[in-house]
Amino acid sequence: MSTSKPTNLRIPGPTPVTPEILKEMSRLMINHRGEEFRHLIESVTKRLKVIYETNQDLHILTASGTGAMETAIVNTLSPGDNVLAITVGAFGDRFAKIAEIYGADVTVLRSALGESADPDKVMSELNNNPNIKAVLVTHNETSTGVTNDVESIAKIVKQDFGKLLLVDGVSSVGSVPLKTDDWKCDAVASASQKGWMAPPGLAFLSFSLESWKANASSTMPKFYFDLREYKKYMEIGQPPWTPNLSLFFALDKALDLMLTEGMHNVHARHVKTAQKFRDGVQELGLELLAKTESASNTITSVILPEGIDAKEFLYIARTEHNVELAGGQQALANKIFRIGHLGLVTDDEITETISAIKHSLEKLK
Amino acid sequence: MSTSKPTNLRIPGPTPVTPEILKEMSRLMINHRGEEFRHLIESVTKRLKVIYETNQDLHILTASGTGAMETAIVNTLSPGDNVLAITVGAFGDRFAKIAEIYGADVTVLRSALGESADPDKVMSELNNNPNIKAVLVTHNETSTGVTNDVESIAKIVKQDFGKLLLVDGVSSVGSVPLKTDDWKCDAVASASQKGWMAPPGLAFLSFSLESWKANASSTMPKFYFDLREYKKYMEIGQPPWTPNLSLFFALDKALDLMLTEGMHNVHARHVKTAQKFRDGVQELGLELLAKTESASNTITSVILPEGIDAKEFLYIARTEHNVELAGGQQALANKIFRIGHLGLVTDDEITETISAIKHSLEKLK
Repeated sequence: MSTSKPTNLRIPGPTPVTPEILKEMSRLMINHRGEEFRHLIESVTKRLKVIYETNQDLHILTASGTGAMETAIVNTLSPGDNVLAITVGAFGDRFAKIAEIYGADVTVLRSALGESADPDKVMSELNNNPNIKAVLVTHNETSTGVTNDVESIAKIVKQDFGKLLLVDGVSSVGSVPLKTDDWKCDAVASASQKGWMAPPGLAFLSFSLESWKANASSTMPKFYFDLREYKKYMEIGQPPWTPNLSLFFALDKALDLMLTEGMHNVHARHVKTAQKFRDGVQELGLELLAKTESASNTITSVILPEGIDAKEFLYIARTEHNVELAGGQQALANKIFRIGHLGLVTDDEITETISAIKHSLEKLK
Repeated sequence: MSTSKPTNLRIPGPTPVTPEILKEMSRLMINHRGEEFRHLIESVTKRLKVIYETNQDLHILTASGTGAMETAIVNTLSPGDNVLAITVGAFGDRFAKIAEIYGADVTVLRSALGESADPDKVMSELNNNPNIKAVLVTHNETSTGVTNDVESIAKIVKQDFGKLLLVDGVSSVGSVPLKTDDWKCDAVASASQKGWMAPPGLAFLSFSLESWKANASSTMPKFYFDLREYKKYMEIGQPPWTPNLSLFFALDKALDLMLTEGMHNVHARHVKTAQKFRDGVQELGLELLAKTESASNTITSVILPEGIDAKEFLYIARTEHNVELAGGQQALANKIFRIGHLGLVTDDEITETISAIKHSLEKLK
């Protein structure tokens, strides 16, 4: 373990975890089929539901966020089902691909990289395809730093058309408002290493009554991710498979901190922090990938100036200025860099990040 | 966090984790797509392979052991494939069920609870069913405390019949010898909370060249557990999805401790510890479920004396004697109790356990 100053970790997750939460990771093992764990899983689930703004089911999986996305699909759909996948980047593509691999008939509605989904286009797709059973949408696209207007999309999908709505909220829930029940989202996935301020390893999935109705006739194969097993075991306060105990301890503490701060304040803090990052990079003369109205409050994507090599830039920022930034993925590789600002970010970390970007670019000009 | 004496956790996993390993769980987050993690995953994988005694592929999943069992099946088989599932208890049944759910045509070869699989019967099943493509077997059945003779079974399955051999080694590898390459096991699953002395949350799967050949034509659907993604990403020292970093830190330390002790010594220690537990309970006049020749060196199942209620017995042992034992599962509920002795067990813990069993039974007589 290094005793030097910790790296300013500005990737879109894992996010930095505070010492008081990390300390919980070192607690002794307990029996996951005993009373102490029953109290823990019930209490953690209850508070996750508060933050999700749901009174319906929510289950905790020992998996990455991608596992929760797969769980949403395989527990509601059957091979041959028509699905509309709204994608605005790599994680939207991933959601579509999971559905395809399990045999769904997927129609893709794609936006240009950096743009959010247009609710009017969602409406016309649903008008044109009356057989569509479910709509997949990313709330916050981590690869581009774009937030979709899930509230408006949900109105169309749920109120106008009555379809299932499966949401990838991996990098949004807990940082950005998502009203699971009010908006009638049928399944919302998230993961512990995002705004929840815990290390990676647990994924969460809310699951509505309508999802359970769909589940009754869903024939996509599932075992590890079979939510019926999770539901059955949750009645005795257990998960079906051995859970990641240490992360339950950490999450217990992190949820306390979030709810003590108050979710209204947590959300407001993310808005303020994001604005500081956007202002900071624009003051350096840099251009943002996302349009102002859909810019994410958890991840900011910045267009790399002409002639700057992403790898060199990230290397200098990391090794000479202590700031770990993320590059672009797939089509955006070497075209953008990304700043993660989910969870706790101090003003010093913002200043240090902007300064690192400035000096790293200057060195490469 | 309690400051009282830690519970003597004698369930078959999670196993107690020593302070020096737990300390690693509290390390700061790093970039899982950076150099530091590349070194970590490469080093951890290399040492896992030493303990697995394999030079072939091995991948680390953010999942429970059940996830690795599912991974073995969905990456080698296709719906309609004929599979022979050798089961000697609840975890063998689980392996068979996963294959069935994903569409395999499963023939079950079942032994009485407490008995190990008979290699001769495996041979006759394979003679009778020439269409069998793969054989599933549990190395150490956690629900009964029985170890199957995988070496003899492997000889038949691999040398005599040339079938795929998928092994559930969840509660054996790292504690009990399993020679992955020598015995020609095509896939072996394990999980961090067993003999590896780390908390739960990571699962491991070795995967032979023959498994990769089977993979090329495998059509069972998979995404989160798609090993082709793991293989592709491992070339750049990354897993495809965000990994459980804290457990990689812990495992790094645990593997050091295991390899410094030497696997021969680790295995010998498990033999000795298991014998002490078996002797101890037999000296109390209790009967073991497993026959001597197949009794597990990681879990001991003890038959509950007539008239003793399992729940009451476990409650007294836990609350009055500080020892957390496990009950029986499914058909063995209220018929046996189980003692886990994987990983590190001190002589004091053995003495305390035997004494707790003695006094708890006396109180209930």
